[in-house]
Amino acid sequence: MKRIDNFNAGPSALPLSVLERVREELVDYQGTGMSVMEMSHRSAAYEAIHDAAEAKLRRLLNVPDDFRVLFLQGGASLQFAMLPMNFLGPDETALYVLTGVWSEKAAQEAVRFGHVVVDDQAKAEGYTDVPTQVMRPADVDLRYVHVTSNNTIYGTQWRELPVTDSPLVIDMSSDILSRPVDWTNVGVAYAGAQKNLGPSGVTVVFVRDSFLARANGDVPTMLGYPTHVKQRSLYNTPPTFAIYIMGLVLDWIEEQGGVEGIAARNREKAGLLYRVIDEYPDFYLGHAKERARSDVNVTFRLRDDELSARFLAEATKRDFVGVKGHRSVGGCRVSLYNAVSVESATRFATFMEDFVRAHR
Amino acid sequence: MKRIDNFNAGPSALPLSVLERVREELVDYQGTGMSVMEMSHRSAAYEAIHDAAEAKLRRLLNVPDDFRVLFLQGGASLQFAMLPMNFLGPDETALYVLTGVWSEKAAQEAVRFGHVVVDDQAKAEGYTDVPTQVMRPADVDLRYVHVTSNNTIYGTQWRELPVTDSPLVIDMSSDILSRPVDWTNVGVAYAGAQKNLGPSGVTVVFVRDSFLARANGDVPTMLGYPTHVKQRSLYNTPPTFAIYIMGLVLDWIEEQGGVEGIAARNREKAGLLYRVIDEYPDFYLGHAKERARSDVNVTFRLRDDELSARFLAEATKRDFVGVKGHRSVGGCRVSLYNAVSVESATRFATFMEDFVRAHR
Repeated sequence: MKRIDNFNAGPSALPLSVLERVREELVDYQGTGMSVMEMSHRSAAYEAIHDAAEAKLRRLLNVPDDFRVLFLQGGASLQFAMLPMNFLGPDETALYVLTGVWSEKAAQEAVRFGHVVVDDQAKAEGYTDVPTQVMRPADVDLRYVHVTSNNTIYGTQWRELPVTDSPLVIDMSSDILSRPVDWTNVGVAYAGAQKNLGPSGVTVVFVRDSFLARANGDVPTMLGYPTHVKQRSLYNTPPTFAIYIMGLVLDWIEEQGGVEGIAARNREKAGLLYRVIDEYPDFYLGHAKERARSDVNVTFRLRDDELSARFLAEATKRDFVGVKGHRSVGGCRVSLYNAVSVESATRFATFMEDFVRAHR
Repeated sequence: MKRIDNFNAGPSALPLSVLERVREELVDYQGTGMSVMEMSHRSAAYEAIHDAAEAKLRRLLNVPDDFRVLFLQGGASLQFAMLPMNFLGPDETALYVLTGVWSEKAAQEAVRFGHVVVDDQAKAEGYTDVPTQVMRPADVDLRYVHVTSNNTIYGTQWRELPVTDSPLVIDMSSDILSRPVDWTNVGVAYAGAQKNLGPSGVTVVFVRDSFLARANGDVPTMLGYPTHVKQRSLYNTPPTFAIYIMGLVLDWIEEQGGVEGIAARNREKAGLLYRVIDEYPDFYLGHAKERARSDVNVTFRLRDDELSARFLAEATKRDFVGVKGHRSVGGCRVSLYNAVSVESATRFATFMEDFVRAHR
């Protein structure tokens, strides 16, 4: 069996112990005589998996009791539409803080439903930073403020969520469960699972009761949050197998010391790479400003463009997967989500140092 | 390892050889050093899986070249909304042929977007039949006629698709790939995967170019078919692992003699149960009229209500899973989707006969 150092930006690495457990239970789940994939979503065996996944998420992230937890489909991209469809009336205004392509896409969908104002400070800087202070028009009531907590493409991350006088709606797709969440000001948080939580095909949504209470009732059944709240994400067949695997990943996070343990480990992994970047400033150039550096996506380029191509080719040869930067930024991106080991990060940091020595 | 006789209505049985293959490749897919779940959806390895799944579907179902094949999320329930959102303008009319709860739900979503007329002949009969001829208002142009090809809850199925002068939009969720499709009059066909195709979490949509050409351009990005056509179902992260397993199921169908082979086998399996029902008319009562009997869901009750409960308890004791009928119909439902073996069906037919002998 071969296992490579997987730095994919998503879908991405899963813990080996989780994959081994899935393999072990694949054909006969705990003596039921069938795979989890073959179970009715109305069966007691599946409902236990479903409810346990929710309970584990609540426990790990300290989710307050006045939040509903949903397992939906369609990824963050469908949330971009569902959010304003449910929560932004034609006469209401939402503020979207632009910190990358994904927040731009979220804002573009919201324009179809209501008024949108943007904070585009970070855009002007080429998305190398997140705002130190969110800017909002003084004379408008805001239904919500939309924020992307981590920007996969640019490798920037809010170290702390911004403080605003309106509820936050947060796209946490790329850093959910990578660190604790301060829920104080959150109305909705959502995340596709495929980076830190499990396989693609399931989207986790947290929505506060008081925020939900103002939902527009006149939306298609499948696109209304109240439908899924009322039916505990079992209105129609959920992606049962993906939810099962997510549950196993959550067990694994618990074993790592919970979100605090994972956060420390993520900081350590990212630190290994940032240290090399900072040590060789004439060789490597980080994309993100230091204060906005992400713990889960480390983005950089080589100052010498020709060497960049060689660096990527050499990384591939050494079985480092997923290192090429997103086409809109170029260079390199090393994604260090929860399941990426400290050993993998160490190997890559060593590779970066060796490469400097060989090519400087 | 235990394997039971799985008659679940969906999610449902998968071929054992497919599950074994998934297990074998789970931690290291073909020497890539990672699971399919851990691959980028933009990687060559995943794109090969994605494209092969489409090619196999096209080949097995003889899909004409002027159809696009999409892999979406949200199940048939999301299609109920997406279809009229894209294809039914506020001044247009669609006909929905009601043959069960699912077609009723489809019609209810369409009402939000345009005019809906229904053919409710089957409803008047308690959904024991499908119409022999579709009835439509004489004086209206129909944008499309929506049909549910098989009705899981009632065990009824169109033996042949109805002939109309408007394009058909067909929900094939419960009998896709169980038999050949006549595409002549089809505009759109769609199906959740979790009955005949694979795990839950992926929805297959076939849409004809000429039908697509009239799509409403002003819908949220993720809810517009053109988005997914243009991006080959890779606009955002698709449910990669579910698509991979579907591909393996399609290989298995090919090995069974393709859709023709599967159809013959399905007919044989259903025949085993219908024969017992017909042989003991004083004991068993089929729900569906004979001409509308489904090859994939066999629904019946025992004439004696008290014996019904005993029958279900005895079936459970013998490791027959999923035999209880849907709450809206009661009695028993035995789902005999593609992956259910002739041996399983034979065992259940024998059980039914034995039960008659023991309790008559």
